[in-house]
Amino acid sequence: MAQGQLILPRGSQMRPAEIGGLIALGITSLRVATKPAVGLISTGDEVIEPNQSPRPGQVRDINSYTLGALVETTGGEAKHYGIIPDKFEALKEAAAKALTECNVIIITAGSSASTRDMTAEVIRSLGEPGVLVHGINTRPGKPTILGVCNGKAVIGLPGNPVSALVNGYLFVVPVIEKLLGALPRPQATIMARLTVNLPSQAGREDWWPVKLLPFPSRSPYGMLREGAGGEVYDAEPIFGKSNLIFNLASADGLLRIHPDATGLSAGEIVEVVLI
Amino acid sequence: MAQGQLILPRGSQMRPAEIGGLIALGITSLRVATKPAVGLISTGDEVIEPNQSPRPGQVRDINSYTLGALVETTGGEAKHYGIIPDKFEALKEAAAKALTECNVIIITAGSSASTRDMTAEVIRSLGEPGVLVHGINTRPGKPTILGVCNGKAVIGLPGNPVSALVNGYLFVVPVIEKLLGALPRPQATIMARLTVNLPSQAGREDWWPVKLLPFPSRSPYGMLREGAGGEVYDAEPIFGKSNLIFNLASADGLLRIHPDATGLSAGEIVEVVLI
Repeated sequence: MAQGQLILPRGSQMRPAEIGGLIALGITSLRVATKPAVGLISTGDEVIEPNQSPRPGQVRDINSYTLGALVETTGGEAKHYGIIPDKFEALKEAAAKALTECNVIIITAGSSASTRDMTAEVIRSLGEPGVLVHGINTRPGKPTILGVCNGKAVIGLPGNPVSALVNGYLFVVPVIEKLLGALPRPQATIMARLTVNLPSQAGREDWWPVKLLPFPSRSPYGMLREGAGGEVYDAEPIFGKSNLIFNLASADGLLRIHPDATGLSAGEIVEVVLI
Repeated sequence: MAQGQLILPRGSQMRPAEIGGLIALGITSLRVATKPAVGLISTGDEVIEPNQSPRPGQVRDINSYTLGALVETTGGEAKHYGIIPDKFEALKEAAAKALTECNVIIITAGSSASTRDMTAEVIRSLGEPGVLVHGINTRPGKPTILGVCNGKAVIGLPGNPVSALVNGYLFVVPVIEKLLGALPRPQATIMARLTVNLPSQAGREDWWPVKLLPFPSRSPYGMLREGAGGEVYDAEPIFGKSNLIFNLASADGLLRIHPDATGLSAGEIVEVVLI
């Protein structure tokens, strides 16, 4: 190959095929993108470490770990800044430290409205331009805050663990991919048949955790699944307490209801984003 | 939770949501499946190490690295047994060593028919029952050998790098998932519109590498892609030399033509398995 000739576009993911392509040319080492450092801050006087036993009114810090896992699987490096009490100065100090050391900051708020407002205040105080969006018309995710401070993304997510993780998929993943310089790739989805009617409010975008049923047993033939065609699955929405993280653990994916829709009908073929 | 109550089914993948579910219960460590060890053997007098320069008639060992990457991304541990010359005793010795140390063996054959037959002979000599399938009616992948020796899977794949990797997705991935005890999960696919007619031979299953076009730029909204519905993509088959690994490096996925079909027509909506 002529020197400088393009072998793989910048931003390619190193899948097995790309590795093979490089080996074919005798290229056995290469420079890859630096992992973006993502600082994770949990706030709330009621939040405790996972290895502690909650007293009444206390909850374990789930969000640092679900979002940390999401960051790492997306190609980022998760950096933990701990659980910060509901005090402006304490949160500002932790966030300022994270802003110095990281490329992105995620602050998950406590459950009270005052805590959420405090997150926005802190983001405003960290750098310019500060808060860009405060509140979005989705469910879950309404209290989400999107900000930029001195050129770094600062994202405020709801304290509700389901909401924090769903909005992590929506907002944190694309920021990390952008910082990695990753080329856009098609998103993994499954077409499936919705089992029940799902109401939704016009103008609001809803994301429902769904289970895909029946799982056709994966045959020893692997991809040679008979009748390949996504609609071999039923998409069954998972109801129950909206903050229960196990709802997401039993979900195969997320179903989006477009803001223009006023719901979806049982039997409709829908597209489920795998998680 | 009562002791022994089921929290997550055995075989669950530890996605961010599962990690959150465990944290919610204060579970901060757990036992996971052992990575199956997969032994990789390349055969062929003409095959050289990737860092060597090929003389006429020689080719670099691509398959050990594409399949090694596939094994690792699937959750296995790749163990390399090197490049073995076209000599029965040498191959048998390497394979016997790998059979002792690994849960699965993959032997990629040299290009000649005699080499392929030698792989089958070696598998027969390694243990019972030996070769189960010698040759499959797919393209690529016709010379694939499926065997079991003393309870361990032994897979012979074609030397052609595209064929070896495609058949790795078809046969190696499900074996590793089975050994991991992984629960079956829906397969990531994209519905897309085929750009050209694709002929195929009835009775044979074809897998075509395809590029998905246009990539709608991933918006800052991530999953909030407008018009979500897989057919926003065109599926463009990649033609060219069938053994060129770069054909797979530029592919987003694989398109299956069912053995009952005699081809697919331009404009058909097809299901592409992402790779």
